[in-house]
Amino acid sequence: MIGVAVLGYGTVGSGVYDVINENNNILAKRIGKGIEVLHVLDLREFPNDSVTNILTHDFNDILSDEKVSIVAEVMGGIEPAYTFSKQAIMAGKSVITSNKSLVAEHGPELMELAKKYNVSYLFEASVGGCIPIIRPLCVSLTADDILEISGILNGTTNYILTKMTQEGLSFGEVLKSAQDLGYAEADPTADVEGHDACRKIAILSSLAYENPVNFKDIYTEGITKITDLDIEYAKAINSTIKLIASSKKTANGLAAKVCPLVLNNEHPLSTINGVYNAVFVKGNMSGNTMYFGSGAGKLPTASAVVADIVDAAKNAGKTVEVYRNCSSVAKVEPLSSVETRALIRVAFYNKEETKVSCKEVFGEIEFIEIGKEDELALITSFETEEVLMNKKALIATKNGIKEVRNLIRMEG
Amino acid sequence: MIGVAVLGYGTVGSGVYDVINENNNILAKRIGKGIEVLHVLDLREFPNDSVTNILTHDFNDILSDEKVSIVAEVMGGIEPAYTFSKQAIMAGKSVITSNKSLVAEHGPELMELAKKYNVSYLFEASVGGCIPIIRPLCVSLTADDILEISGILNGTTNYILTKMTQEGLSFGEVLKSAQDLGYAEADPTADVEGHDACRKIAILSSLAYENPVNFKDIYTEGITKITDLDIEYAKAINSTIKLIASSKKTANGLAAKVCPLVLNNEHPLSTINGVYNAVFVKGNMSGNTMYFGSGAGKLPTASAVVADIVDAAKNAGKTVEVYRNCSSVAKVEPLSSVETRALIRVAFYNKEETKVSCKEVFGEIEFIEIGKEDELALITSFETEEVLMNKKALIATKNGIKEVRNLIRMEG
Repeated sequence: MIGVAVLGYGTVGSGVYDVINENNNILAKRIGKGIEVLHVLDLREFPNDSVTNILTHDFNDILSDEKVSIVAEVMGGIEPAYTFSKQAIMAGKSVITSNKSLVAEHGPELMELAKKYNVSYLFEASVGGCIPIIRPLCVSLTADDILEISGILNGTTNYILTKMTQEGLSFGEVLKSAQDLGYAEADPTADVEGHDACRKIAILSSLAYENPVNFKDIYTEGITKITDLDIEYAKAINSTIKLIASSKKTANGLAAKVCPLVLNNEHPLSTINGVYNAVFVKGNMSGNTMYFGSGAGKLPTASAVVADIVDAAKNAGKTVEVYRNCSSVAKVEPLSSVETRALIRVAFYNKEETKVSCKEVFGEIEFIEIGKEDELALITSFETEEVLMNKKALIATKNGIKEVRNLIRMEG
Repeated sequence: MIGVAVLGYGTVGSGVYDVINENNNILAKRIGKGIEVLHVLDLREFPNDSVTNILTHDFNDILSDEKVSIVAEVMGGIEPAYTFSKQAIMAGKSVITSNKSLVAEHGPELMELAKKYNVSYLFEASVGGCIPIIRPLCVSLTADDILEISGILNGTTNYILTKMTQEGLSFGEVLKSAQDLGYAEADPTADVEGHDACRKIAILSSLAYENPVNFKDIYTEGITKITDLDIEYAKAINSTIKLIASSKKTANGLAAKVCPLVLNNEHPLSTINGVYNAVFVKGNMSGNTMYFGSGAGKLPTASAVVADIVDAAKNAGKTVEVYRNCSSVAKVEPLSSVETRALIRVAFYNKEETKVSCKEVFGEIEFIEIGKEDELALITSFETEEVLMNKKALIATKNGIKEVRNLIRMEG
C-alpha cells in the first residue's frame, strides 16, 4: 500500500482526495499496489466531510508516520510549504506539488535535496493545471534544442480577455462578473498583473533552457490597461490580444517577458479561449508543438498531482528526474535591449499632420483606422524596447498629436 | 558511448542521422554519454552522402556489433522490419520505431519481448510525428480514466481538406497540387482512404484503454467523397469538415471510427489546419486536453525517434514501459450499434414536399439551405448507425425527393 498525506484541504487538496478515491481501482492497477490517503493537514475543521477521520493540524503526525511515503503539498505560498517540503524529503518521502510560487522560488534546491535522499520532487501541476507540459518538455522533446516557449498560463486573465473580445465589454465589467462566477479571486492582483504567469514561465524556462531562471528577472505587465478599443484595433488586423508569457533563446542569453500581445489569428495561441491554458514550444528539430487544457480547476489540477504521485510510487526508492542538467542561473536580457514591435494608439488634433509626424519618427509604417474621430493606431517595425519607448515618448511631442493612448506589443 | 544503428535511410532515417549529428553536444549532455550512429542499413547506395562510410546492406553487421545498443527501425512496412526488430531485441538491443503499421500489427508482442530481454521498444514517432502523445497519455494522464481520444492524425488529408475549405477547390484539384508539392504520395490511398489514421488511432486506443485494439475492427472511411458543396453546408452552420479518427469508451466496450466529421468551430480540433496534426483526449478528471504539432516531416519525426533513443539510453539495462497493463484484446462495438448523427444532403424535385418527407422519417429536424436550386441539407438527431442508414435509404424513396447526395457524420 502506498500511503499519501495531503497538505492543505482547499480546492486542489480536496480534489486530490477525490481523484484518489474516485479512481482508486485504476490507480492500484497502474501502480501495482493500492494507494490510500492517510492524513490531510489543514488548520481548519471539516465536520461534515469524510476527511474528518484523517484530518490533522500537526505536520509532525505526517512526518513521523512511516507508512506515508508520498506527500502532496497543495497548500500554496512559500511558508510553511517550504519547510514542510524540506522536512518531508529529508524524512525520505517524495513530495508532489502544485505550488508554483514555491517551485519558482526554491524548485532547483528542493529537486537537488530530493536527489540526495533518493526521493522525487515533482511539480507537473504547478504549471498549466492538468496540461502535460513538464514531461513533454523534458522527455518527449529531449532531442531538441528548445528555442522558444510561450503560453497562455493564466486562466483568469484569458477568461477576461476572451469575454472582452467576444462581448465588447470593459476590463472592469468582466472582472466583476468573473469574480461573481468564481473565475477571479476577490483580490485578483496576482492574476491580472501577470505575477502568476510570470512564475509559471520561469519554471518552464528553467526546464527548457536547463538553467534556473529567476522569475524576478522577467519583465511583467498585466492586462489592467487593455481596453475594448485596443481589442477593436487588433480585430481590424485579424488579430487577438492575449496575455502571453514567453521566453526565447537569444545570442546574449534569454529574452523573457509577460505582457499583453497582439497575436495574429493564425497563431495557434490566438484560438485558446476562456479559462483554458496552452503552451507553445519551438524546438530546433520538432518545430512548433502546442499543449492545451484546463489551466486550473479542482479536478484537472488534482489529476496532475495524482499522476505525479503515481510516477513517484512506481519509482519508489529512486528519484524521478524531470530537471535536466542545471548549472548557473540563466542570464535574462534586460528588456530594454530586446527587439519588439508594437501597436500604438495615438489621439490627434489633426490626422494628416499626425501621420506625417509618426512617419518622421517611425519611418514607413502601417496605420490602422477603425472609424474613430480623434485617434488612429500604428504598427511599428522591430526595434529594441529602449528605442521603441524613446520613440513613443517623442511622438507625443510632435505636430498634430494630442497623446499616446496605449502601446501593446505584437508577437514576432 | 551509445552506439546506434539506423534501419532505412529514407526521409525519417536521414532525419535521425541529421538530428543526432546536429544536436550531438546537447544529446551527450542529456544522456551523460556521447551518442554515435555506427551503421545505416539500406539496400541503396548513397555515393555523395557522408553516410556512405557507415552504410551496410546486411542487417547481420548490425546484429553482431556489440557496440550497437539501440536500433532505430524507420524503414516502414511489416517485413523485414518485424523480423529485424525481433532479432535486435533478442540480441539485447532496444528498438525505437516510427513504423505505425508494425506497431499497430505487432506492437504488444514486441513490447512483451523487449520486457523479457530488459530492453525497450518505443514508438512515440509512430503517431503524430513529433507530437508528444504516448508519454502524456501513459504518464501525465495516468491518474485518469481516459474516456475518449480523437485526433487529426493524417497530415495529407488535413492539408487537402484545409485547402478545399479555404480556397473552395475540389478534392481532385487539391490532391494533384498536394502531390506536386510532396504533401501527398503518388499512390495516396493509405492517406486519403483513412488507413494511416486508422492504424494510429488503434495504437493510441490500445494505450489509453489498456487493451490492445485491433485496427481491423475500426470502421474506416476516407475523404474522397467530400465535395466543396459539403464544406459549404458545414460553413453555413459554423462548422468545418475534418478527417477524425476517434475512439470512445462505451457501456459495451469501445466505439471507434475513422471518417470525415462535421466539427463545430468551437471544437479545438476544428482550428488545426494544413499538415498539422492534433490529438484531443478526454479524461474523467483532467477533462479536455489537446496536443498539437507537425504530424510528419523529416526532422519533426526524427526528433521523436531521437527522444526515444535518449530515453532508452538513459534507461540502459531496463525496460522503459509506456504500455500499461494490457490483457485481452479490446471489444470494438460494431459500427451499426453506435449512436451518431449526420448532415445529409438531399436533392429534390419539390422542396416543400421534401421537407415534409424528411420530417416524416427523421422527426423534428433542422434544415440547412445555402441557396442551391435543387438541394438542401438536414441534420439528424442521434440514432444508431443502423437506424440512420435505414432512414437514409428510406428518404430516397419518398415524395418530392430525387436522391441523397451525401451523408457526413457530425461530432457529438
